[in-house]
Amino acid sequence: MKKCTFLLVLFLAAMAPAVLGQSIDIYPTNWWTGMKMNKLQLLLRSTSQSFEGKQLTTRYPGVSVLKTHRFENPRYLAVDVVIAPGTKPGMIPFQLTGQGAPETLQWPLQEQRKGKGTSYAQGVTSADFVNLMLTDRFSNGNPSNDRVASMRDQSLNRDSMYLRHGGDFQGIINHIDYFKSMGVTALWLLPVMENDRPERTEHGYAITNHYKIDPRFGSATKYKELSDVLHKNGMKLIMDAVYNHIGLEHFLEQDPPAKDWMHRWPTYTQTTYKEQTLFDPYAAPSDRKRMSDGWFDNIMPDINQQNPYMANYIIQNLVWYIQEFGIDGVRIDTYTYSDLEFSNRCNKAIMDEYPNITLFGETRVFGTPNQAYFNTNVFNLPFKSNLPGSVDFQCLYFGIIPALTQPFGWTEGVNKLYNTLSNDWLNQDATRNVLLLDNHDEPRFFSVVGEDVEKQKMGFQWLLTCRGVPQMYYGSEVLLKGFTNPDGKVRSDFPGGWPSDQKNAFTGQGLTADERSVQQLVQQLGTFRKTSSALQTGKYMHYVPDNGLYVYFRYNEKQTIMCVMNTDTKERTIDFNRYAERTAGFSKAENVLSKDALVTTQKATIAPMRMWVLELKK
Amino acid sequence: MKKCTFLLVLFLAAMAPAVLGQSIDIYPTNWWTGMKMNKLQLLLRSTSQSFEGKQLTTRYPGVSVLKTHRFENPRYLAVDVVIAPGTKPGMIPFQLTGQGAPETLQWPLQEQRKGKGTSYAQGVTSADFVNLMLTDRFSNGNPSNDRVASMRDQSLNRDSMYLRHGGDFQGIINHIDYFKSMGVTALWLLPVMENDRPERTEHGYAITNHYKIDPRFGSATKYKELSDVLHKNGMKLIMDAVYNHIGLEHFLEQDPPAKDWMHRWPTYTQTTYKEQTLFDPYAAPSDRKRMSDGWFDNIMPDINQQNPYMANYIIQNLVWYIQEFGIDGVRIDTYTYSDLEFSNRCNKAIMDEYPNITLFGETRVFGTPNQAYFNTNVFNLPFKSNLPGSVDFQCLYFGIIPALTQPFGWTEGVNKLYNTLSNDWLNQDATRNVLLLDNHDEPRFFSVVGEDVEKQKMGFQWLLTCRGVPQMYYGSEVLLKGFTNPDGKVRSDFPGGWPSDQKNAFTGQGLTADERSVQQLVQQLGTFRKTSSALQTGKYMHYVPDNGLYVYFRYNEKQTIMCVMNTDTKERTIDFNRYAERTAGFSKAENVLSKDALVTTQKATIAPMRMWVLELKK
Repeated sequence: MKKCTFLLVLFLAAMAPAVLGQSIDIYPTNWWTGMKMNKLQLLLRSTSQSFEGKQLTTRYPGVSVLKTHRFENPRYLAVDVVIAPGTKPGMIPFQLTGQGAPETLQWPLQEQRKGKGTSYAQGVTSADFVNLMLTDRFSNGNPSNDRVASMRDQSLNRDSMYLRHGGDFQGIINHIDYFKSMGVTALWLLPVMENDRPERTEHGYAITNHYKIDPRFGSATKYKELSDVLHKNGMKLIMDAVYNHIGLEHFLEQDPPAKDWMHRWPTYTQTTYKEQTLFDPYAAPSDRKRMSDGWFDNIMPDINQQNPYMANYIIQNLVWYIQEFGIDGVRIDTYTYSDLEFSNRCNKAIMDEYPNITLFGETRVFGTPNQAYFNTNVFNLPFKSNLPGSVDFQCLYFGIIPALTQPFGWTEGVNKLYNTLSNDWLNQDATRNVLLLDNHDEPRFFSVVGEDVEKQKMGFQWLLTCRGVPQMYYGSEVLLKGFTNPDGKVRSDFPGGWPSDQKNAFTGQGLTADERSVQQLVQQLGTFRKTSSALQTGKYMHYVPDNGLYVYFRYNEKQTIMCVMNTDTKERTIDFNRYAERTAGFSKAENVLSKDALVTTQKATIAPMRMWVLELKK
Repeated sequence: MKKCTFLLVLFLAAMAPAVLGQSIDIYPTNWWTGMKMNKLQLLLRSTSQSFEGKQLTTRYPGVSVLKTHRFENPRYLAVDVVIAPGTKPGMIPFQLTGQGAPETLQWPLQEQRKGKGTSYAQGVTSADFVNLMLTDRFSNGNPSNDRVASMRDQSLNRDSMYLRHGGDFQGIINHIDYFKSMGVTALWLLPVMENDRPERTEHGYAITNHYKIDPRFGSATKYKELSDVLHKNGMKLIMDAVYNHIGLEHFLEQDPPAKDWMHRWPTYTQTTYKEQTLFDPYAAPSDRKRMSDGWFDNIMPDINQQNPYMANYIIQNLVWYIQEFGIDGVRIDTYTYSDLEFSNRCNKAIMDEYPNITLFGETRVFGTPNQAYFNTNVFNLPFKSNLPGSVDFQCLYFGIIPALTQPFGWTEGVNKLYNTLSNDWLNQDATRNVLLLDNHDEPRFFSVVGEDVEKQKMGFQWLLTCRGVPQMYYGSEVLLKGFTNPDGKVRSDFPGGWPSDQKNAFTGQGLTADERSVQQLVQQLGTFRKTSSALQTGKYMHYVPDNGLYVYFRYNEKQTIMCVMNTDTKERTIDFNRYAERTAGFSKAENVLSKDALVTTQKATIAPMRMWVLELKK
């Protein structure tokens, strides 16, 4: 019986937001019993009728209506409801009474999905290997959803970087084995909520409906299927959450409850993009305001997060989304542009509901203290962030990039990477930061290192052995290249994702020897990492770089991995005794990739611009 | 009577360390009544006799001998004594008894100098303007002390950067009016304790006797005269203290009480110079040890500060020195190389005795968190420094130098200065940091900016208007130039300091128009600063740099100073409304240097690579 109810409720939820075809939308579109978040503020929206003088009530046992809030725009109503513990799942009938004929609105209250904390909301940690991708650019598994007639963007042209290419969830599902073979354990897709815009819809950050999966990727059902397939394969799903803005075509902007749901400026005003203004004791208040309240882009209205209704709307959507789709980790977009107290509220709501879940922010900032400010940190300051981690742009900009592209110097080259890591104590736990070589907003690493295959290999070896959560950007393993400006140039299709592709990275067909060798390296090291406790959770120890030679260790009681990065222009001799704290007690060092075995009593020679990942053995 | 005692005691102290010609030296050489530090550990040293079986006693009222400590080397004895409150000043007779004939050692206990906290130990703050110099290189006021027959270095040759040039305290005293005319309020001399070495004695950091002023600068009496002349002229004197090392020829190294007073290594081992190892959670212990215990240089043995006797010796000397010579502020050399807990003890001893005194460390490190770690800061960490401020190398390396030498970029050029200042919240009080354009270890700023006079002027305008304590390196106001490597090249003589000099910066004779114009700018702005409450103690506010145009304010209720730094390659238009937070209510902006008056309702144009310091008026 219970199972039937559950299935019915699932079915009903799948119909949201147009439950039973009713003309009034309710957000959240549905909810669950047994949630910690059991006080909700339902937002009712009608495109036709006014709620003036109307009241919402229900006699459903356990569900109470507390308070009604009205807006400038009478076609909106916010209603505070509480769902008492022990309330039974079912279709809740809400009566809308007042002027005119009474109306009944159906609202599904479901049972929570099983296995919370094991099969979803598990958290993504340094034991994982994340693959980041744009769904539209990975693989087209279902050509029938490439264009959706009801939507504004009717483009479909793979020759243009800003038009739609047709990639979808089915394309990802079709290639689960590929991810597994690479050692990937978690997928992070750029936002997949509806982006019903006339153009530039490939990135997903201009959300037009927080409760609707973009049909060009497949339906919500298909997205759940992807979530289920991942979980069945021991993998995880990361949500890309956007606290800061919405798409210009979102109904909350096109038909807002009140003007102040978004930040308004006399003329279009962009953010300064200067995170400094948020913590800088010397910042002019006008600069600080423009940073937080200015628009990130003219197609993305900046949410007024101090509007309590707007705030509730976003917070509830986050918990809804995680529950609805079985999310394991949350990446938060444009983190530094939001009202930080609001972001703390969002984070807390998520972590209260899902204690094991992990969150990491896009804090694309320029300085280790700048980044740490937005995370849980060691600072005694009035503002305390509760964000566990960040995308670690410091280790990118002031780490691996200079290490492989700058001549060595006291503050340059690999010394920059060393210095950046030495500042990890600014964070409460730097291993919660997400390492990257590139992403959808950054130049492809292969281009950054001058298309030097050996440097690309060094980059991946570093990515998979340094502390933190490694994140690979789709296709960098087969040497996709491109500089940003415009950023579309780093968003090209994954080779083999479309039936007509000449080159196929899944089968290896048409790959160059270089492409194959880098892919193989990632595959080998990614797979090794899956069972390497030292790389997954081991401690980190490093030595002062010596003229471009940088040596670090990942280690625990069971395993010691020694990483040797020679960024020098000359070959260098390795004396294992120099690293006695970590090499003592071992006699052999086996290269994890080449399987070459070194004897630690003898010196070894590493060629210029090469890296070794060695497992030490007795 | 009291005055006579005081004079007698002063006379006796001046004879130290060879009090009454006795063959046993006692350190500290003398002490004072009424000191908070009234428990001392006297170190007795004889070059001829053993202290084996000997005891020190005294019947002087109020002075008690508590405990005696013996060493490997029997010609040393450490004796703990306590001087009770209310003890009268006088010559204390200590009886040395045991084997052989009893001996009486005289030890002067003086009255403290008057006016503590007003005429000395005043602290050097952002209201001051510090002039840093090498005494040997500023001016030769007394040719008779150029060579001292008893000393190892008999060189005297102004053509060589590492030989002695003859500058002395009398040379400084002779030019007090010059400092005053420049607006300078405090002098920081590199260490002036004895450096009795065969060569490289110009810098003073290889101290061979902590209780003796180098006679080539003049006597201790002359140093006191300098201190008195400064104080009479409303100026201050900064001590350059060295916690970390001594000179190779110091008796504590040549004839040590025990081997472990210095750090010993099987072979000569230099520090890594990597401050990161001290706070880095990933540092190898061996790297950390080498940083702290390795030698800074092979001529300067590294003090083992964990040896309690050695520690007491240094700490007592610091307080002795401040009291003896009337010091107002302490600059601490090679701060990051010391045992940091020991440094905290030193700092505390000084600040306990002299609550108004200020200390700043030489933390020549590379990163804002790196620097803040060594100061009082906002970090919740087990180690907490009590050092109030640092020489602000961050504002130099990642501030004014890139601002004036790098093209503008998102993280380059003047944006680097902006970003560095925005991190001031890492410190408890960043205004206690000491700003600089150059010093004895850095290339001359004029060389750094490619001998561009306008950039030099911008540098000085910045130095005298930014937050913190401005420090000028002698001669940079008349465009002394030179790159380090070797560092002697930035230690040339001040023009006019020697009678034979063709060029004289005191009289202006022989100065080029450029030299005169920069000197005049410093004079004018230094003098303005002396009565400018906004520049001395005002708040700081700045605006996000706009393509190389950086605008900041120093302000309080009484005065507003607007600083406009155009680092762009084009002329720029200033719209005063853009800075409404600070310009509202004012109608005029008067250039402090040129006296040009602008009207704030009109836009103004600033040429490329120029700076304005404007006083806003109603």
